Amino acid sequence: MEGIKRREHAEIFVLGKRVDDVTAHPFLKPSVKSFKATFDAAFEEDTRGLARAYSPFVGEEVNRFVHIHQGPEDLVAKVKLLRKLSHKTGTCFQRCVGWDALNTLYVISGKIAEREGRKEYLNRFIEYLKYVQKNDLALAGAMTDVKGVRTLRPSEQPNRDAYVHVVEEKAGGIVVRGAKANITGVAVVDEVVVMPTRAMTERDAEYAVSFAIPLDTPGVKVVVGRQINDGRRLEGGEIDGLPYMFNHEGLLILEDVFVPWERVFLYKEWRWAAQFVEVFSNYHRQGYAGCKSGLGDVIIGTAHGLARQLGIADKPHVQEKLTEMVFLNEAIYSAGLAASWEARRLLKNGGWWVDPMYANVTKHLVARFPYEVAKLSHDIAGGLLGTAPSEADLKNPELRPLLEKYLQGVPEFTAEERLRMLRLLENTSLSVAYLVESVHGAGSPQAQRISIQRVYDFQRAEAIARRLAGLKAEASGDARAEPRRPAEAEK
Amino acid sequence: MEGIKRREHAEIFVLGKRVDDVTAHPFLKPSVKSFKATFDAAFEEDTRGLARAYSPFVGEEVNRFVHIHQGPEDLVAKVKLLRKLSHKTGTCFQRCVGWDALNTLYVISGKIAEREGRKEYLNRFIEYLKYVQKNDLALAGAMTDVKGVRTLRPSEQPNRDAYVHVVEEKAGGIVVRGAKANITGVAVVDEVVVMPTRAMTERDAEYAVSFAIPLDTPGVKVVVGRQINDGRRLEGGEIDGLPYMFNHEGLLILEDVFVPWERVFLYKEWRWAAQFVEVFSNYHRQGYAGCKSGLGDVIIGTAHGLARQLGIADKPHVQEKLTEMVFLNEAIYSAGLAASWEARRLLKNGGWWVDPMYANVTKHLVARFPYEVAKLSHDIAGGLLGTAPSEADLKNPELRPLLEKYLQGVPEFTAEERLRMLRLLENTSLSVAYLVESVHGAGSPQAQRISIQRVYDFQRAEAIARRLAGLKAEASGDARAEPRRPAEAEK
Amino acid sequence: MEGIKRREHAEIFVLGKRVDDVTAHPFLKPSVKSFKATFDAAFEEDTRGLARAYSPFVGEEVNRFVHIHQGPEDLVAKVKLLRKLSHKTGTCFQRCVGWDALNTLYVISGKIAEREGRKEYLNRFIEYLKYVQKNDLALAGAMTDVKGVRTLRPSEQPNRDAYVHVVEEKAGGIVVRGAKANITGVAVVDEVVVMPTRAMTERDAEYAVSFAIPLDTPGVKVVVGRQINDGRRLEGGEIDGLPYMFNHEGLLILEDVFVPWERVFLYKEWRWAAQFVEVFSNYHRQGYAGCKSGLGDVIIGTAHGLARQLGIADKPHVQEKLTEMVFLNEAIYSAGLAASWEARRLLKNGGWWVDPMYANVTKHLVARFPYEVAKLSHDIAGGLLGTAPSEADLKNPELRPLLEKYLQGVPEFTAEERLRMLRLLENTSLSVAYLVESVHGAGSPQAQRISIQRVYDFQRAEAIARRLAGLKAEASGDARAEPRRPAEAEK
Amino acid sequence: MEGIKRREHAEIFVLGKRVDDVTAHPFLKPSVKSFKATFDAAFEEDTRGLARAYSPFVGEEVNRFVHIHQGPEDLVAKVKLLRKLSHKTGTCFQRCVGWDALNTLYVISGKIAEREGRKEYLNRFIEYLKYVQKNDLALAGAMTDVKGVRTLRPSEQPNRDAYVHVVEEKAGGIVVRGAKANITGVAVVDEVVVMPTRAMTERDAEYAVSFAIPLDTPGVKVVVGRQINDGRRLEGGEIDGLPYMFNHEGLLILEDVFVPWERVFLYKEWRWAAQFVEVFSNYHRQGYAGCKSGLGDVIIGTAHGLARQLGIADKPHVQEKLTEMVFLNEAIYSAGLAASWEARRLLKNGGWWVDPMYANVTKHLVARFPYEVAKLSHDIAGGLLGTAPSEADLKNPELRPLLEKYLQGVPEFTAEERLRMLRLLENTSLSVAYLVESVHGAGSPQAQRISIQRVYDFQRAEAIARRLAGLKAEASGDARAEPRRPAEAEK
Repeated sequence: MEGIKRREHAEIFVLGKRVDDVTAHPFLKPSVKSFKATFDAAFEEDTRGLARAYSPFVGEEVNRFVHIHQGPEDLVAKVKLLRKLSHKTGTCFQRCVGWDALNTLYVISGKIAEREGRKEYLNRFIEYLKYVQKNDLALAGAMTDVKGVRTLRPSEQPNRDAYVHVVEEKAGGIVVRGAKANITGVAVVDEVVVMPTRAMTERDAEYAVSFAIPLDTPGVKVVVGRQINDGRRLEGGEIDGLPYMFNHEGLLILEDVFVPWERVFLYKEWRWAAQFVEVFSNYHRQGYAGCKSGLGDVIIGTAHGLARQLGIADKPHVQEKLTEMVFLNEAIYSAGLAASWEARRLLKNGGWWVDPMYANVTKHLVARFPYEVAKLSHDIAGGLLGTAPSEADLKNPELRPLLEKYLQGVPEFTAEERLRMLRLLENTSLSVAYLVESVHGAGSPQAQRISIQRVYDFQRAEAIARRLAGLKAEASGDARAEPRRPAEAEK
Repeated sequence: MEGIKRREHAEIFVLGKRVDDVTAHPFLKPSVKSFKATFDAAFEEDTRGLARAYSPFVGEEVNRFVHIHQGPEDLVAKVKLLRKLSHKTGTCFQRCVGWDALNTLYVISGKIAEREGRKEYLNRFIEYLKYVQKNDLALAGAMTDVKGVRTLRPSEQPNRDAYVHVVEEKAGGIVVRGAKANITGVAVVDEVVVMPTRAMTERDAEYAVSFAIPLDTPGVKVVVGRQINDGRRLEGGEIDGLPYMFNHEGLLILEDVFVPWERVFLYKEWRWAAQFVEVFSNYHRQGYAGCKSGLGDVIIGTAHGLARQLGIADKPHVQEKLTEMVFLNEAIYSAGLAASWEARRLLKNGGWWVDPMYANVTKHLVARFPYEVAKLSHDIAGGLLGTAPSEADLKNPELRPLLEKYLQGVPEFTAEERLRMLRLLENTSLSVAYLVESVHGAGSPQAQRISIQRVYDFQRAEAIARRLAGLKAEASGDARAEPRRPAEAEK
Repeated sequence: MEGIKRREHAEIFVLGKRVDDVTAHPFLKPSVKSFKATFDAAFEEDTRGLARAYSPFVGEEVNRFVHIHQGPEDLVAKVKLLRKLSHKTGTCFQRCVGWDALNTLYVISGKIAEREGRKEYLNRFIEYLKYVQKNDLALAGAMTDVKGVRTLRPSEQPNRDAYVHVVEEKAGGIVVRGAKANITGVAVVDEVVVMPTRAMTERDAEYAVSFAIPLDTPGVKVVVGRQINDGRRLEGGEIDGLPYMFNHEGLLILEDVFVPWERVFLYKEWRWAAQFVEVFSNYHRQGYAGCKSGLGDVIIGTAHGLARQLGIADKPHVQEKLTEMVFLNEAIYSAGLAASWEARRLLKNGGWWVDPMYANVTKHLVARFPYEVAKLSHDIAGGLLGTAPSEADLKNPELRPLLEKYLQGVPEFTAEERLRMLRLLENTSLSVAYLVESVHGAGSPQAQRISIQRVYDFQRAEAIARRLAGLKAEASGDARAEPRRPAEAEK
Repeated sequence: MEGIKRREHAEIFVLGKRVDDVTAHPFLKPSVKSFKATFDAAFEEDTRGLARAYSPFVGEEVNRFVHIHQGPEDLVAKVKLLRKLSHKTGTCFQRCVGWDALNTLYVISGKIAEREGRKEYLNRFIEYLKYVQKNDLALAGAMTDVKGVRTLRPSEQPNRDAYVHVVEEKAGGIVVRGAKANITGVAVVDEVVVMPTRAMTERDAEYAVSFAIPLDTPGVKVVVGRQINDGRRLEGGEIDGLPYMFNHEGLLILEDVFVPWERVFLYKEWRWAAQFVEVFSNYHRQGYAGCKSGLGDVIIGTAHGLARQLGIADKPHVQEKLTEMVFLNEAIYSAGLAASWEARRLLKNGGWWVDPMYANVTKHLVARFPYEVAKLSHDIAGGLLGTAPSEADLKNPELRPLLEKYLQGVPEFTAEERLRMLRLLENTSLSVAYLVESVHGAGSPQAQRISIQRVYDFQRAEAIARRLAGLKAEASGDARAEPRRPAEAEK
């Protein structure tokens, strides 16, 4: 349980240059610190209860971030842990995708074993899981392909590599090529778990692969992405220079990378691609209840602090806005709790999965409410949020007394306190982690809408309505009394 | 378990006239049928699992609507049962207020016993509960006083009777006077449980009373209220004449009504009034997750059916709207599930209560989303929703062939099917049960906002933010690691 | 200028029965009164300035409701007049569709004359217009066909009569058949102007007709539609019995109706159908700024009155809600003013039309905000909105003193004042005129979205963006500096 | 008409350091370029018609940005010009506050002359205006004081300088002290017009001052504020390094600054402070219709371009989102047009002012819709908005071919085009100009709500409702037929 290492053997690029030590680079340090919080959580007093779990696979307690859920309580613990960790980091801590990938691989390889009697994938995965759990590895999960022309299937693309695919089969394993975008935490992890990103047809078979590789595998390149406001990281400084944790996301490029068979968890299994994506997505959508409501708490707390600094925390319209922020934030969280408590088992002996309706409702709320919370926080903070002087101004001896005098609200708080809270609000409420990720993480809003539409049983609702309207059931059998079960819920 | 009786001895007024048999009156029959569904639920195949529960008080299974919750599962079963019952009734079934009143009385009388050693209220209540459970009685819960000048306390009102109060203490009991408004189902129940409606001060002591009385107690008058579209109930007819179930609400007037001591559950206990209201309100707010999402299903199903009749169910913008309706509806439900699963115990041995944050979030969502769902359903239904001919037109031999020809959409459905679905939508999406009650039931939106504001720990959120901003904890001790507990959560 | 007559020779059906005198029937009287307000407006002191206009066609002042707009000021006067009239009626006054039909016919027949040199339609229309203006006739405009299968064109329908069409051409005129739905005011007007409802192809030519007929033309049947709460009109009574004005809408059935050539304004002109609909729709969408904001005023005023009756008008959260209602209401109105002031000329010498973007924005706001205004009004009004006793209860001598005591809020207002205001709110905020019509009138929301999408110049916006991004203009010529003009804006 | 100069004599601080040449500093250059667009507009072909106006004060055409509005058409031209200029700058061009200050000073000094016969302020102002118009000066308007404790009046503050005030009266003029926050464009202008920021009482008289000073007046310090993402300006580069125009805002500190009498336009005129603020605010709120809808166009165009790059521009859900963005954007603009066309005259011979209701509606829409537009644009753009590689990565020869391959969508567009459009979207949709300023510019949302509440005539609305409810007018005279006029509308 050592946490994040230098990754000196991996090909990682930041702002066009190769990085030798991710733990030291000003662009990546904030992300390393945020990742570290997931390791520390298992040892800190206020989180260790949530952050540890007993793994039947290795027969001991493991960090929850590498745990396979053993029941609804584990799924509930997930969202509760994520909310608490957000309070410590103020950003995404980047370890959920890998965690959700592990649980998805367990379910899918398990289902292939159950349904088709092919236990090879499951056996390989269990071995890999033990290795991950024993070493408390940091994993990235890589799902989103770069996709080229969005309206074409993988096999129809003008660019054959627009989706990651197998280019060669060797005795010892396979060779893969392609790129995955928006990969959270990818530049600092031990390993990357690669997954298919969409439903496939037989013609897309070479694209239906899942596997795990160490980050420093030959042929792997990582190009770290930019985030709003990141230029300030280069400035240094303890107020303006982003002395925060941040997540990072990046482009993962696989140039003919060799993967040994024991690390291949799906190979041309195009029939299982759709369910793979569905299982993963819903795990990940559920998780947003925790991390995004945790960020919401930070923003609410900052807004509350700024309101107190201005002496307006008791004004009715400010209380209205604070209450509205809480309401929106807790609505997100409550949907995630429902998705967790209403968990279902996908395998005969486990494979605990979230309720897909509430998981999608969670994420869809996340795709809407944070912009509203951000707006309300800006409203309370005042225009200075967009116009406050710099840390360097505050430190300039000629300006400091003037700024101390003019930036102060009520006398109980200093100008520096105001500036620090404004900067925190700027870098949380206008962050990629709180806005863009809330829209696109775990699938864009349209993906949730498609899921919601598919999970809901419209025919049954119509049959209920027809009965109340005094109409007979339709011949097509719409009168079934019980709701349709999602296809993937086998048990 | 006989259900609703004639109530010939009670003084019930409908449209200015005394009613002799509530089961026969065209205004009340729809309500009686809806009430009946709660009794039938314990016997019908698809609901009996949810609608029965083992009561330790009488040592046997009882109808869940008179059950004291024994754990989170019971609270979850409540919202699931309510959703299912809404599918059968298409309206409020009116038995939740009484049920929530029983659970509240159990908690409050239990807390008085635990905290102050006074077991009299608890003992009286347990005896009453056994009577109710054994006879599966229909109860109304009466909380909302008429309130006079809203900004004044009970004891400050120009009209001393603006809140129900004790006017005399006798050897065998008390005499009470006042009126309660918006009392759901009040004209058809066996008994009414009267509760205080707000926090009190010592000067309001005479208003801090709770008791139960049979509906036909001398001095009790019930004036049944009007609802939008109710005039059609007087018309008869199987399409237009509201052949639906409806709830009713009414004004309960108590003119110097005698209540024997064994039916008095709180007497001048002004210190307990605030908590009484809080416990009750949150039970009731949680319940709305079930009944209102069930109504939402009916409206979604009706809109889906109408879209199919017009041949537009597959159009992208119609699917967007249907999906949005589902999303809004399931968001309501998921908050209610969270409120239930995250239940807490208020007594040493029970008194299982909902999570107050999620219960308030539930109700606040209910106070917003149904108007949006209604609007979307109207959008899909088409303008004919507000202009469709009458049932009598359809039955006029001269008009019938014309209407059959011109009201038909796709040939698979008849004009009558269209008319029936339009009428159903009119009477659900524009109903008091779905709109006005969704705003005001279990407290108006402002009441939830006040609760949300009180339950949320702003100081803790601010402390989290300060830490992230690099600021020290404030001297006032805002750095506590754990969230504040609601005052009422004793265990 | 006599207003509405008995229409004893027309075949009008209400609740399945033929009506002899529309001015006396309890279902239609409220509508007749509302229509009358449009005639009276030209004579009442506070409206005559707005309600009269000089017509160059007849060389004298006419009622504005039959006026052809002569400039932007006339279009502005339209929305201002409509807002004022809504204050007098509290509902739709039903004369706008006919008015907009006149203006549309003027534009389209004028364009045919200008573009194609065919002046016959224009000449016929001018003669008809003079007749209408001189006699101040009440006109209904009939556009919406019943449409059968929504996804099929008129000529593709299984029911050939699903759209109104020519079935025979005679020497003196044409014979038409079909039905038009949702026709506002149709049962009480002098004449009906029939218009095509959608874009047509050559195969739909027989459906591309427009004409005017007196209501009592042989073969014409009108089936008056139902509205929410209409059953109470049959009760009588001055509080509950809907002593209000209401609009009505109905189904217009044309069974082989003969129309003389001089009343035919479009005959198989399928090429002009699309533009006809566009011109009409935007006139009508603009108008909603006036009438719906006027209804909004009524609802705001009612909510304000009820808040004062309860003593809560000064509470911050009530003021927030009232202010929000005003904001939403004035947003609607301001969009309509913009659509009017930014009018454009469609003919060389007139044909003043609204700006299509702002007209569509107006209507799209109308399709959203009234539900929100209604919800806020219900929030302020309190639950009694859905539970108040009946007028008959109030008049029952046994109940009256009790109700006077218990329904009173602050002493300055009586229980009857409260009841009257609650009933008014019920019948405005939950009315077809304020809700369903706001969604569907002048085209459902999707129709506005299609218009908005077509009017906006996305290519130009993208060219602006490319320039700012440092990219060259695309070869396809997206760099045009000026916005695209809507196809129909000829001048 | 030379535009922006170096300002080498002014004390301007950026990131803690004194700036010698604002036209060369990487932080201020983008702002200088944006300012320049306002000068160029009077000469460029597509804007010169809008950007020039005839000034009766100097008897010749002037740049509209220093023009006193002579009628509604001038106010309309203002919003149209602002929209067009936003297309050229992609940000705020910073000259409106000064312009609105001129118009406000004209109205207020004119009213003092008309009402009280004191023409001194007006005469001084006219002389100043001529100077500004003849030299086409760049002006900042400084209204918002730093305010200290928000709930206290100026004279009650613990920090006496929390509002700008007169500290000494001399023979030749006055000496002022204090600071103004959020001053748009302040570091690069010729002159600053200082205005009072709130209603005053007699005890606040020393704070009720307005005057103009050159930026390089002794005692004036400007501290330029930070904006989200500004760190990148220090990087250089033509894609990432913010090669855009930006506005800037800053803190204006006045340390005992001397102002000669001829530049003092209000002196201790506490009675006029409230109206001053009202007149100014509404001018400024109206303007947002133009500039923010122009920014909206840029964002819509960028989203449209990105959708085309991904091949999804024709997908129904993308079209829904683009249409929604247009609708929201045009709603803002149409309210501003209404505020302009419905202008009113505040002086006997001019002083044309906006309609206060629609101006407030405009700004209130601006305070809400941009966050929604931003969210929709992020939805369309895809997650790469928050994760795209840097310009330096694209220029790295090892990475370039990989990025060109993997960032490309449809083959018609290059990876660089995608990156440029993503960066543009990042820097417009997440900018201070589009978000924080939209909330706080021209007063925070609560300020508009207070205005809306005050302008709307609730009593009249209630009187309308009472009449419809069959109630008599209240004795208090609520029956007035005409709406209340805003206090400030004298003519």
